[in-house]
Amino acid sequence: MTLASQNANNNDQEVILVTGGAGFIGSHTVVQLLTLGKRLVIIDNLCNSSEEALHRAKVLADNKGSLVFHKVDLLDAAAMEHIFQLYTFSACIHFAGLKAVGESAQIPLGYYQTNVTGSLNLIQLLQKYNCKNLIFSSSATVYGLPTSKDPINEDAPIGALNPYGRTKQYIEEILADIAVSEPDQWNIILLRYFNPVGAHESGKIGEDPNGIPNNLMPFVAQVAIGRRPVISVFGDDYDSPDGTGVRDYIHIVDLARGHVAALKKLETAQSTGRTLGCVAYNLGSGVGYSVMDMIHTMSKAVGRSLPYKVVGRRAGDVGTVIADPSRSFKELGWKAEKTMQDMCDDLWRWQTQNPDGYTTAEETSAPTTPTPAPHSAFTELLE
Amino acid sequence: MTLASQNANNNDQEVILVTGGAGFIGSHTVVQLLTLGKRLVIIDNLCNSSEEALHRAKVLADNKGSLVFHKVDLLDAAAMEHIFQLYTFSACIHFAGLKAVGESAQIPLGYYQTNVTGSLNLIQLLQKYNCKNLIFSSSATVYGLPTSKDPINEDAPIGALNPYGRTKQYIEEILADIAVSEPDQWNIILLRYFNPVGAHESGKIGEDPNGIPNNLMPFVAQVAIGRRPVISVFGDDYDSPDGTGVRDYIHIVDLARGHVAALKKLETAQSTGRTLGCVAYNLGSGVGYSVMDMIHTMSKAVGRSLPYKVVGRRAGDVGTVIADPSRSFKELGWKAEKTMQDMCDDLWRWQTQNPDGYTTAEETSAPTTPTPAPHSAFTELLE
Repeated sequence: MTLASQNANNNDQEVILVTGGAGFIGSHTVVQLLTLGKRLVIIDNLCNSSEEALHRAKVLADNKGSLVFHKVDLLDAAAMEHIFQLYTFSACIHFAGLKAVGESAQIPLGYYQTNVTGSLNLIQLLQKYNCKNLIFSSSATVYGLPTSKDPINEDAPIGALNPYGRTKQYIEEILADIAVSEPDQWNIILLRYFNPVGAHESGKIGEDPNGIPNNLMPFVAQVAIGRRPVISVFGDDYDSPDGTGVRDYIHIVDLARGHVAALKKLETAQSTGRTLGCVAYNLGSGVGYSVMDMIHTMSKAVGRSLPYKVVGRRAGDVGTVIADPSRSFKELGWKAEKTMQDMCDDLWRWQTQNPDGYTTAEETSAPTTPTPAPHSAFTELLE
Repeated sequence: MTLASQNANNNDQEVILVTGGAGFIGSHTVVQLLTLGKRLVIIDNLCNSSEEALHRAKVLADNKGSLVFHKVDLLDAAAMEHIFQLYTFSACIHFAGLKAVGESAQIPLGYYQTNVTGSLNLIQLLQKYNCKNLIFSSSATVYGLPTSKDPINEDAPIGALNPYGRTKQYIEEILADIAVSEPDQWNIILLRYFNPVGAHESGKIGEDPNGIPNNLMPFVAQVAIGRRPVISVFGDDYDSPDGTGVRDYIHIVDLARGHVAALKKLETAQSTGRTLGCVAYNLGSGVGYSVMDMIHTMSKAVGRSLPYKVVGRRAGDVGTVIADPSRSFKELGWKAEKTMQDMCDDLWRWQTQNPDGYTTAEETSAPTTPTPAPHSAFTELLE
């Protein structure tokens, strides 16, 4: 029986809506939530993700909890409304969105439409169907240019520097305005991710970027596996110990656990009636690693040195960006636990087991079963 | 013959799309453009404006130029696309949007959807149908809290302080990103309005706000005409000559002329091939008047003193906001010419001739003729 039919019959089940749940961060969070026995409805347009990640997530969670998947685009207002008619959601975790900084400068309109208009569509439905518990995937990029090398806390001024970052900033500000406009109704947690890397320790799920990776570590992994010839290091004249840029890398499983901690915060707020309004939390380790640190650690994981060349700085890059994660520790009881070597070992395991990402998957479970018209845009994962 | 049919037959006519053309600023600009012989297609959802304003605008322009009106909402993507299929636009002046600061804090989602999503829909069509000449109605509110009493120029940092202002800021930033993403293609002028007041000197068109006016001068006019009992003066302890807030008021006809100047700038850019990208211009007088200045000047226009009471400051208000309009003078050849007394005399003429705004209009010209299905959402003004 699918979760869809369960819920059609029993609307008081607590069901969590996960948008973009098939993506990198989404799928790792899905494993955590399923393991806790949560019931999930996942929507994703699969434009930069694979349904295969969800099949594997179910296996990694030992088939605990339940999930049903619908291939839906946030911009398809009718399909979105149908989802809200099918289920009663207790909370929403909103991952869906385009995420490549460089691409966002090339096609800003697409980014604003997908991320901002898509989120507005979702928010309207959350409001209409009275699901006012929301976790939103934001990014440290909202902080823009840090004024110092000090760790950044959530009260730092925000001001994103590229279209991607602006979409995150706008959605944050919109959510804050909505929480203020309906006092004592909304529990909204903005999670500002620093630099998520690594993969599930099983090597079964991981990051599978379309085209040339935008971020350092997927690029490093693709060089290590032989898909790309050499790592480009953008600048070695920053004010940092080895001159290369320093970032706050966070293991994807730690990041996923951060969502579980945020969800607990929402549940506590609901049960105590003390609404949160809209609150931001950093998800970072609080520790900075340089580009060279990461390349060397990845070399250890791989067992040989990796080719790199130093090229010029990239426009808009800064030397050091590190989270101050103390509010997350204090208020969510969460902190990053995995090491830099864990990040690299797990990334390498994923990369070697899946040299071409999900596209070479040999272990697809049951084929997807399209539901009959008029909902033919939906695909369901049978349980 | 309607302009619609002319253009259906003759797509090389230069036609300007005016969104929100039936509103306060829109209708005054329409008079200026028609007087110059321009061909206009006006769309408006009439949620806070009246088609009657367009009938009167045609008369005020001595039936020069041409206009056709379609009742269309920017959020209705199919109806919008149909408009772009009917006409070939040489430029667009984008006035449409919700505009009340207070209301925007109460229903932020509606503001973000109408203003931001609506603008994204429009921009997508401008891009698709290759009409890359755009004038956008922005606002001095994007400057947020001024850091001093000095006149504000266009390079001042922006950071709006309320949802309405954020919608304007976001659209500005989105347009700037789009201009950068398609170099040498876009001519975009952002017009940052200060405080538009007054009415056409004929008294035939003017500001007709729904409900309680948000801005000082329509409120003053409604007190003068007896619709409201007393003017509230929000704070008399600001650092200004008489202690009341100082603003840069600009006569609506001067503001409308600013759009003509901006349109000439776009036309020059097109004809010379020197694209503008995205440029902001202040439309303000450069002179500050206090609340008491405005009340006294309005009293002169009315011929008797007007009742007012000083109440506490409003949250978020600042003492002094004045434009530095020098860039507009230098690059658009435009400056404000009308006096404070003109603003009050013309406002009073409009108010006395139309005590209830357009709702009591006795001089409606031809009834609107709905076009046949499937375009029944459209209404056309016959020429």
